[in-house]
Amino acid sequence: MESWIECNKENIVISSRVRLARNLKEFPFPNKLTKEEGIQIGQKVREAFMESVSEDDKYNTYNLWEVTPNLAKSFVEKHLISPNLVKNNDVASFIVDNNETISLMINEEDHIRLQCISGGYNIREVYEKADTIDSLLENKLEYAFHEKLGYLTACPTNLGTAMRVSVMVHLPALTLNNEMNKLLKGLAQVGMTIRGLYGEGSKGEGNLYQISNQVTLGVTDEDILNNLEAVTLQVVSQEKQLREIYLKQYKYELEDKVFRARALLESSRILTLKEGLSLLSNLRLGVELGIIEDITIKKLNKILIYSQNATLQNYLGSGLKERDLNIERANIIRNILLET
Amino acid sequence: MESWIECNKENIVISSRVRLARNLKEFPFPNKLTKEEGIQIGQKVREAFMESVSEDDKYNTYNLWEVTPNLAKSFVEKHLISPNLVKNNDVASFIVDNNETISLMINEEDHIRLQCISGGYNIREVYEKADTIDSLLENKLEYAFHEKLGYLTACPTNLGTAMRVSVMVHLPALTLNNEMNKLLKGLAQVGMTIRGLYGEGSKGEGNLYQISNQVTLGVTDEDILNNLEAVTLQVVSQEKQLREIYLKQYKYELEDKVFRARALLESSRILTLKEGLSLLSNLRLGVELGIIEDITIKKLNKILIYSQNATLQNYLGSGLKERDLNIERANIIRNILLET
Repeated sequence: MESWIECNKENIVISSRVRLARNLKEFPFPNKLTKEEGIQIGQKVREAFMESVSEDDKYNTYNLWEVTPNLAKSFVEKHLISPNLVKNNDVASFIVDNNETISLMINEEDHIRLQCISGGYNIREVYEKADTIDSLLENKLEYAFHEKLGYLTACPTNLGTAMRVSVMVHLPALTLNNEMNKLLKGLAQVGMTIRGLYGEGSKGEGNLYQISNQVTLGVTDEDILNNLEAVTLQVVSQEKQLREIYLKQYKYELEDKVFRARALLESSRILTLKEGLSLLSNLRLGVELGIIEDITIKKLNKILIYSQNATLQNYLGSGLKERDLNIERANIIRNILLET
Repeated sequence: MESWIECNKENIVISSRVRLARNLKEFPFPNKLTKEEGIQIGQKVREAFMESVSEDDKYNTYNLWEVTPNLAKSFVEKHLISPNLVKNNDVASFIVDNNETISLMINEEDHIRLQCISGGYNIREVYEKADTIDSLLENKLEYAFHEKLGYLTACPTNLGTAMRVSVMVHLPALTLNNEMNKLLKGLAQVGMTIRGLYGEGSKGEGNLYQISNQVTLGVTDEDILNNLEAVTLQVVSQEKQLREIYLKQYKYELEDKVFRARALLESSRILTLKEGLSLLSNLRLGVELGIIEDITIKKLNKILIYSQNATLQNYLGSGLKERDLNIERANIIRNILLET
């Protein structure tokens, strides 16, 4: 499996992700833990994890009380850990593999949050990988499990499978056509949801969204996977149809948008995150539609990551003021786009 | 002398222009003319003009009732004739030399409007050229002249020297700093005025302005020339000082503006006149400040002319709708910028 950032598939689906929540039977949930108990859980889980996974894969462990906030946030920007984990920085830690596809968060909302993420439309594969590791862990750790409620979790909305499956999708045409609220309502009826990846509400900055299951209780893993697959294919097909219509009716307007975005990303000297995400979306659309042929999706994913504040701070040394950050963002994006 | 459009001087002053108004003693002013009288004046003036000027220079004569509105308007966009001339299209005509520096309008507001325009800061030269032709014409035609009031003109504001001298200037820094209203007030006190070349009021689209004398009565040609020279040098010096300050304090913001403008002019597929003029101003600033070294002022002047509606229509064949005009404008600007 490859990191979603390294992925080069020209698809509306940028990445697929599975996240399992698990808790150890003998400990209270993280919000009730003492610091000592938290450290103890960390040791137990790390040990079990390292014994379970193949020795060929390389893993790094980070304790939140030891790493800089910017390094932690840069993992958040790569979608490898959650913002919540960073908040529990006295007892939380995480493990990430070198490919950045597997991550295990310890003492986030639950004792264990195991995640597998990969590029493109890849739900089954990431599920199987997560499921395999989960089964191995279950041999070594005693999970909190109830016959009727399934896996017990700190928040009742995760009870049951305690599994969240999601895809990150790029929906510029549906967004432009104001379809997102309608889509949100439709998905809610089948126990799914869609939310903007950046920014609030249903309109995502950079036209990036995450579709995921909301229901975990009374369904099987298989139900959730089937459901997400069906919904994702439908959304992708709607987006594609709308793109075709735009391409037919507004060819010049679309090309104008795409070429302007590329020109600005390659030329500007100061770039806010918001403008960068918006231009990047237009450029991605151009690449996905074949209007632009000499820029890879991998480059776009790299820009998406490197242009974000914490990754930038982490890469350049922290302490940059907003104006300097905007200057460095423009520099880095320009360099990535112009490098051969 | 060379056409201002062909001029390559990197100066804040884009062009210099002198315009003389003259009327024939034996005819009423154009607003009172019969069509027959108008035609008669046209013949008299053309004959006198052709006998006066050197045979080496080539001139073309256009009768407004014979040319397409777009061709006429394209001469307006080159500042060779006035919008008013085009309105009198039953009796008006004009003569233009091949270099597009000399033009003579017949039956505009006055019987004769003789103009000389050239690139850069060039007031004395254009004055001498116009004055020479005027003296030769005066040998052959009987001008309406009054001992006290000077040359008699249809509008009393032109009485006296009946001369309007002007420079077209590019003032992005003064505009950005909201100095234009202050400047306008200052100039009014010395009998001069400044107005936006495009758009209304004191804010010019594309940051292009025309500085000219308002007073023609009770002053000599020499007074007017001295006055305009003094004022122009002062405005240019203020603009330069302000540019230096911006360059020191906002280097990245300025470079950002300039490189974005170039990128958009080279890449956009749809461009309104307003946006085009604004981007062109930023690019011109970049060339004038040496931020951009591989684009000539001549190219920028060419773009300024070719991107305008009537010139575009005239060049491409008329009847283009606004959207098509915006597409063609983007194409032409891109081609001019990318041609070597």
